[in-house]
Amino acid sequence: MDMVVPDSHPRKASLEVRERLLEGFNDGLIAEAGLIAHGRGEALDYLLGEATRDPALTALRVGVGLMCLADKPCISVNGNVAALCASDVVDLAGVLGGRLEVNLFYHSTERVGRIIRVLGKAGAGEVFGLQKKNVVAGLDSYRGLVDDALWEADCVLVMLEDGDRTEALKALGKKVVCVDLNPLSRSARWADVTIVDNIVRCLPLMVEFAGEAAGYEGDRLRDLVAGFSNEDNLSDMEKLIRSRL
Amino acid sequence: MDMVVPDSHPRKASLEVRERLLEGFNDGLIAEAGLIAHGRGEALDYLLGEATRDPALTALRVGVGLMCLADKPCISVNGNVAALCASDVVDLAGVLGGRLEVNLFYHSTERVGRIIRVLGKAGAGEVFGLQKKNVVAGLDSYRGLVDDALWEADCVLVMLEDGDRTEALKALGKKVVCVDLNPLSRSARWADVTIVDNIVRCLPLMVEFAGEAAGYEGDRLRDLVAGFSNEDNLSDMEKLIRSRL
Repeated sequence: MDMVVPDSHPRKASLEVRERLLEGFNDGLIAEAGLIAHGRGEALDYLLGEATRDPALTALRVGVGLMCLADKPCISVNGNVAALCASDVVDLAGVLGGRLEVNLFYHSTERVGRIIRVLGKAGAGEVFGLQKKNVVAGLDSYRGLVDDALWEADCVLVMLEDGDRTEALKALGKKVVCVDLNPLSRSARWADVTIVDNIVRCLPLMVEFAGEAAGYEGDRLRDLVAGFSNEDNLSDMEKLIRSRL
Repeated sequence: MDMVVPDSHPRKASLEVRERLLEGFNDGLIAEAGLIAHGRGEALDYLLGEATRDPALTALRVGVGLMCLADKPCISVNGNVAALCASDVVDLAGVLGGRLEVNLFYHSTERVGRIIRVLGKAGAGEVFGLQKKNVVAGLDSYRGLVDDALWEADCVLVMLEDGDRTEALKALGKKVVCVDLNPLSRSARWADVTIVDNIVRCLPLMVEFAGEAAGYEGDRLRDLVAGFSNEDNLSDMEKLIRSRL
């Protein structure tokens, strides 16, 4: 399906992202359910105005701050993230000194392998996710099995994920930063910091801010994080969406 | 992908519809883009409360009334509609004395054939869509080619469709009834009657009301249609969605 989107189309950026996603699907990075999930994101992003709003900008700085403060930050990567933002997550892990782990809703070893290769091409060193040796309580079957990067992490970045996963990671005492376009979702509510934005927009901004924050003193990072209320931030995002309708 | 959704899941109905859609995808009725479109619908339906709201109930009665008043009503069917609601559209066409035509965003003769077979199994007689002999101005390539049922229709029911198609059908002087979960979409704005609801909920209600309306006098149908403002109805739907955020 080779489509050229005319410049004049009112939603050109969104359609080009969709084309990249479909490439990822054809390359076997994404399950069918990942295409449906992307559609949910498109609709929510449309309501958001397809822009990174101010509360999201605040949240992404705090989220990066939290990861800078962590001893073992980990970025959890699924097929949609790999298809759309492989370089960004590799860059972010690099700047933060964090690890990358592939974790899929519908597990398949072949798919994990393909995603690891895509991340490798984007410059990643070691990528975790093939050795499912640790059991996270509260999640069914494969989704509860994780490799060492997620298991040992004290702070995890999850993007486009189900609420029960955020909840289970929180129950293990980890800090969770999440990117979710739905401010009402269980993930959004459970996370320590929720960035209500599209990953294709906020990840590059996170990489940029991580570079800046790498030069911050510990106290400055702690101040940044301490002044943040996720509940207030989510309610600001809800108001923004409401005002657009 | 054989999933059993537990009764306790907060969004069981939505997940079961998704499973049916994925079956349709695996049977070759739906293109990848149809899965993404379904996801957009899921998110919008979630904001709607996954229920048929009062303005939608009003709109669906008016929409059915408009089709009852038409000489040659036609129901346009795409892959998602066929996968989720084949029996309903066949029943609706039966009660209204309307015709069915398959019309796809990403045309493929094989896919049209498969959808016609699915509609046939659901009890349809003749289904149009294979003979693309008429050109609708304003639409690119295959999307602008239609068979006789759409070409000759004075009133068309379109579901889950792009705005430019509604616009092109209106430009031909046809009445358009549309089902669209996005009250802000171009389709929603262009149609004569827009039903902001999920097709899996509103189509059975439309079949039921069509049975009732079949016994109405012409004047009663004309009164029903005359008192309706699509603009007001859409603005009521927007208010409802806003109040839920």
